[in-house]
Amino acid sequence: MTGPAEKPFFEKACLIGVGLEGGSLALNLRKHGMAGRIVGVARRPESLARILELGLADEATDDVKAAVRDADLVVFCTPVGAYAALADQVSGCFKEGAIVSDVGSVKQTAIRDLGPAIPDNVHFVPGHPIAGTEHSGPDAAFLELFEDRYIILTPPPGTDEEAVAKMKALWEACGSLVEIMDAAHHDKVLGITSHLPHLIAYTIVATAADLEETTRQEVIRYSASGFRDFTRIAASDPVMWRDIFLNNREAVLEILQRFTEDLTALQRAIRWGEGETLEKVFTRTREIRRGVIELHQAGTFDTREKKD
Amino acid sequence: MTGPAEKPFFEKACLIGVGLEGGSLALNLRKHGMAGRIVGVARRPESLARILELGLADEATDDVKAAVRDADLVVFCTPVGAYAALADQVSGCFKEGAIVSDVGSVKQTAIRDLGPAIPDNVHFVPGHPIAGTEHSGPDAAFLELFEDRYIILTPPPGTDEEAVAKMKALWEACGSLVEIMDAAHHDKVLGITSHLPHLIAYTIVATAADLEETTRQEVIRYSASGFRDFTRIAASDPVMWRDIFLNNREAVLEILQRFTEDLTALQRAIRWGEGETLEKVFTRTREIRRGVIELHQAGTFDTREKKD
Repeated sequence: MTGPAEKPFFEKACLIGVGLEGGSLALNLRKHGMAGRIVGVARRPESLARILELGLADEATDDVKAAVRDADLVVFCTPVGAYAALADQVSGCFKEGAIVSDVGSVKQTAIRDLGPAIPDNVHFVPGHPIAGTEHSGPDAAFLELFEDRYIILTPPPGTDEEAVAKMKALWEACGSLVEIMDAAHHDKVLGITSHLPHLIAYTIVATAADLEETTRQEVIRYSASGFRDFTRIAASDPVMWRDIFLNNREAVLEILQRFTEDLTALQRAIRWGEGETLEKVFTRTREIRRGVIELHQAGTFDTREKKD
Repeated sequence: MTGPAEKPFFEKACLIGVGLEGGSLALNLRKHGMAGRIVGVARRPESLARILELGLADEATDDVKAAVRDADLVVFCTPVGAYAALADQVSGCFKEGAIVSDVGSVKQTAIRDLGPAIPDNVHFVPGHPIAGTEHSGPDAAFLELFEDRYIILTPPPGTDEEAVAKMKALWEACGSLVEIMDAAHHDKVLGITSHLPHLIAYTIVATAADLEETTRQEVIRYSASGFRDFTRIAASDPVMWRDIFLNNREAVLEILQRFTEDLTALQRAIRWGEGETLEKVFTRTREIRRGVIELHQAGTFDTREKKD
């Protein structure tokens, strides 16, 4: 495929879960005229009301079967731990020729859990937008979330190429950069760039939360010295992240093991006063930073910083 | 002391080390008319030249003894590991009645290493501005570095109150919020808010640096998913941070031990699929974030975000 692809159009788009990701996708589908009608699925009555108030969908319902029926596009936007039960419910409801996708942060278990419910005459194109904030819920949705962000699609071998092209064009219309990747490879890379950093940020903030009251107040007061970045990351949605760690267990445990070894080595160097070891490690990390900055300067990289 | 204090004035101010911190302090001394003459001390000829080019000092020299002589204010702005050797050199050179201070990130060893060189007729007021960027050297200096940032002063018991008040007024003129604290307590709090986060950031980026080439390139590409924040922190000055860890060893090792225990507990929960444990920890960390945000909204907190 060369040149800008035509924007796809779906008569009926169904978003299962309309929070930060699903809601932002809804805003894009509408803005770029990619959906005739948007149906949002949520469980709680207050969420259903809020979805309509915010104009994130034309219709909001807790009846996932009805929502999926006749839909030309179905996108799972819930925490990945909810996929298996939802797949059970909607099995047999998909429209022939429909495209089913998702925005989950772990792709192998997404395929494992959603795949069996999707018949041969329906196209399954799993996806993961590398885009998010520490906020969650319908109110967190905004149009620009996916702009200049990578979207990784992980279609299983044999997936209909036209369906993949349509999803690619959909995300490009949202301003995203689309990459195709093997699901296992995705899970490994994201285990390093996203899951491990989140786990560590959660841990350090939890360690601070256990300090006695006076010290904890001072930690908050002097957080600008490094700690604050960790508190932002550790404010991310607990259920979504619980599910990510449970579903990307192998990759996370493997990189965590390496991290722990490296941390133990530094700990030992501190204990024994081995300044050269410390300086060597602290110098070597600058190379990676240079890579990140160069990518940014090349303009292929998101430059927005999240705000408090 | 109540009300805004008068800005102090020092006929000759000597800054030992004129990088990010020393250079920014020099810009403030000049801007607010707090120094008649500024002498900057550096070792390398190219630094000496650059200090003058950037207008960070009236005079730049590698002769620390001459620089200290007749100075009414002497501020050590080198990595803390250089203090002991410098103290040896300048011992006996201080002017009677002068104020000696520093900007080091560890206060107990600053007092241990500088204290013995400072005679009774000279006032020693150690300090630590909670302000920095990942950049270093004279070119990194800028006037606004200390604005709305905390400065912690840790005068040893019995320090002349007038000298402490002068240093407080100096930093307030730079736009800073000044706190007085016990050195040991400072080292403990900063071990948590600053030293541990830096150690962890260095570690995770080092772990990534050891990945095989292809994966490393992808980690850089998809760094926006969490990793990027760590690369910025881990780009900080290696020698400065080597010295911090060597000098705040006890406090860092103690909090690191707690962190490792907490991380191991989460690792175990992931391995055994204990979702409730994960969700509970991930929820509890939000309280700390709320504290950080409230402090920010109360206007007593720096709101600037560092940029790539």
